[in-house]
Amino acid sequence: MKKINTSPLSGMQELLPNDQAIFDRLKHNISDVYHHYGFLNIETPIIERAEVLLAKAGGDTEKQIYMVSKTAEASDSADQALRFDHTVPLARYVAEHSNDLVFPFQVTQINRNFRGERAQRGRFREFYQCDCDIIGRDKLPIAYDAKVIACIHDALKTFNLPEMKIRISNRKVLSGFLSAIGAESKSAEISSIIDHAEKVPVEVSRNALTELSLSDEQVDKIMTFMFIKGDYVEVEAKLTEILPYLTTVREGLDELKAVFNILNAKPDMSDIEIDFMIIRGLDYYTGTVFETFLKDHRDIGSISSGGRYDNLASNFTEQKFPGVGGSIGLTRLFFILNEKGLLDKTTVQPIDYVLIPLSSDEYAFTINTANKLRQNGYTVDIDFDERKLGNKFNRAAKIAKYAVVIGSDEATTGKLSAKNLQTGETTPLE
Amino acid sequence: MKKINTSPLSGMQELLPNDQAIFDRLKHNISDVYHHYGFLNIETPIIERAEVLLAKAGGDTEKQIYMVSKTAEASDSADQALRFDHTVPLARYVAEHSNDLVFPFQVTQINRNFRGERAQRGRFREFYQCDCDIIGRDKLPIAYDAKVIACIHDALKTFNLPEMKIRISNRKVLSGFLSAIGAESKSAEISSIIDHAEKVPVEVSRNALTELSLSDEQVDKIMTFMFIKGDYVEVEAKLTEILPYLTTVREGLDELKAVFNILNAKPDMSDIEIDFMIIRGLDYYTGTVFETFLKDHRDIGSISSGGRYDNLASNFTEQKFPGVGGSIGLTRLFFILNEKGLLDKTTVQPIDYVLIPLSSDEYAFTINTANKLRQNGYTVDIDFDERKLGNKFNRAAKIAKYAVVIGSDEATTGKLSAKNLQTGETTPLE
Repeated sequence: MKKINTSPLSGMQELLPNDQAIFDRLKHNISDVYHHYGFLNIETPIIERAEVLLAKAGGDTEKQIYMVSKTAEASDSADQALRFDHTVPLARYVAEHSNDLVFPFQVTQINRNFRGERAQRGRFREFYQCDCDIIGRDKLPIAYDAKVIACIHDALKTFNLPEMKIRISNRKVLSGFLSAIGAESKSAEISSIIDHAEKVPVEVSRNALTELSLSDEQVDKIMTFMFIKGDYVEVEAKLTEILPYLTTVREGLDELKAVFNILNAKPDMSDIEIDFMIIRGLDYYTGTVFETFLKDHRDIGSISSGGRYDNLASNFTEQKFPGVGGSIGLTRLFFILNEKGLLDKTTVQPIDYVLIPLSSDEYAFTINTANKLRQNGYTVDIDFDERKLGNKFNRAAKIAKYAVVIGSDEATTGKLSAKNLQTGETTPLE
Repeated sequence: MKKINTSPLSGMQELLPNDQAIFDRLKHNISDVYHHYGFLNIETPIIERAEVLLAKAGGDTEKQIYMVSKTAEASDSADQALRFDHTVPLARYVAEHSNDLVFPFQVTQINRNFRGERAQRGRFREFYQCDCDIIGRDKLPIAYDAKVIACIHDALKTFNLPEMKIRISNRKVLSGFLSAIGAESKSAEISSIIDHAEKVPVEVSRNALTELSLSDEQVDKIMTFMFIKGDYVEVEAKLTEILPYLTTVREGLDELKAVFNILNAKPDMSDIEIDFMIIRGLDYYTGTVFETFLKDHRDIGSISSGGRYDNLASNFTEQKFPGVGGSIGLTRLFFILNEKGLLDKTTVQPIDYVLIPLSSDEYAFTINTANKLRQNGYTVDIDFDERKLGNKFNRAAKIAKYAVVIGSDEATTGKLSAKNLQTGETTPLE
């Protein structure tokens, strides 16, 4: 027989049913929180015109796009590719359907994306991203930035993770600051140094800044700036020490203040702070930016991030659609939490009852019993297999919470008892 | 500006949010029924090794496969393609993970598949299939065939469709019958004629059979056979009239009887009947086969189908995995039902409350109110937009059931009232 490799392709996650149930629960919880915040679900096609995807993708992303080749039957002549994120398809969707959408358009997309990255442990080529975005037409008040962050925060809390920290900044503060100290021409290099500062010793960041031929005073101020964090009052006070007038950062600070004040209404506000070290790599963001870390697991990196972008669909339309959004990279997060033993695996038995009829004479009664239990919301399997009873109990214990044996006595009297497959205890089934 | 076509590619379904909510509800209902029947969810990658997919695909399917080209970064050297159904990936999954699975393995896959078919109205290149399968190791009792049919039946009932008919047959009855009348050498041609019989006048089928140079008696018997339908007793009686001894069809009849008797325990058994006109095109099936039709909408064709296959993973392993499964082609079904006005669109407003704070002074109170409502299970949007109140009500009416205006009085007293956006009625919000 021809031997075919049956392992999934490299970079693809494939779970056994119990892990899949945990993954599905996490995905459901995120979706549920987004939904309760009023986000509407959409699904865009996985295959898009290549020109749509390439309109935004640059550099590495472009190299990582999966191209799809037309088949003999497909008559559409466009070059096609698999989407690499939800944002580009969302921009296309908004441009295409803007007349039929209600703005601000609060939208969620929870689905798979594809990137042909170099294969590496914990990096996936096919991965779920759980996005929520709010898109305005022409303008979008800053309060929505707080809404996205609050929603992402509540979604992540359903994971029961150890202490997390959502760190918020605003791009306008950084650019205003760099322009105030006369360093705006080196903005890209400085941003990159700040973005990496957390992963290297302080002296490495300082040296890197010095190599940009900045003055000592400029370097000192940037080194102070990047370590500013806290609540809004603290942050403004610290910033005033290095920038007495604040004129150039006023707009950014006002936005930060508005976001922080709204989030202050949350009872669990201690998870959230302003932190000027947060940059977000993409050029894309124009105002609010945020990242999320687990306090005792910084090595994981950011588990969720997002921010404000001034013009979502500029590649597709003259209309202006400012937006703010956030994303949880679920496939990678699941993999890492699983490795670290941080996943709540308490509810892995997805089936409530396995009913075991002793002969085909009891099938009708068993099926009726199963239907009644299902109507009461229970998940019920019937074991029709022709094996020994002991084997059936073994099977049931692997997938279910209770087993119910149904022989002629039970079918006649209707009196059933359920065996708890963890404790061995038997109780009457009402 | 460069003009990019923002419509989705031909053959891809893309829904507006309200239709998406209906689609998602149908998908959820199917998944929920499968889950309550004890099926475990899995997700296999959308991208597979081409050799895995081609191992089973033949003819048209092979021409319709979407090939994926490796990107600059991806180092995996295998040829890759997008899966065209759930069955081939399931076969690979079972072969790969058999030591970690609990048999009978009751599994559901609800996800998108891809076929580059010729574009045509109502035909999709990217489409959801909602599969449930039961896989045995070495053997699988016939009772599971009834379970799959019962489960698919209950899943379809959640659609609130007009009267449906599940028509069941068994391949072994057909082959036993053809061998009894000495026509087994023309089995493929005869099957195809029976398969098409419903769409053409009776004389067309008769002529087609005559052209196979069968005897008049053979043609008469086949013409009688293909119109046999009813409950098991009726069907056996009618078959006995043209085949007095039944020896060659005994195994198939016994299987049909077992399936029918188990389904008889269902209270809604009138939806189900045996019908020898059901063939199912794929060579693939070896025993039970079924299709589902809407009685007054036969033009739609079968809305769900499936059957028994003797050896799921024969291309991947020497082990024998008999299985039985069924599938609902949700994307196409949704499209057709939508066109025919058969979709239940009563619950299209996905959001319960839109809260409208009159100024930023009420933000904190509004956010707390929203959080309380969310904790009570409601979906809640907050309108932070800077528009006139009338515009905010218009927006709310498009997406939600109720609007709640929050000014300084409401924030101070905590007394809120909700306006029903359909009736205009205002009631206190507890």
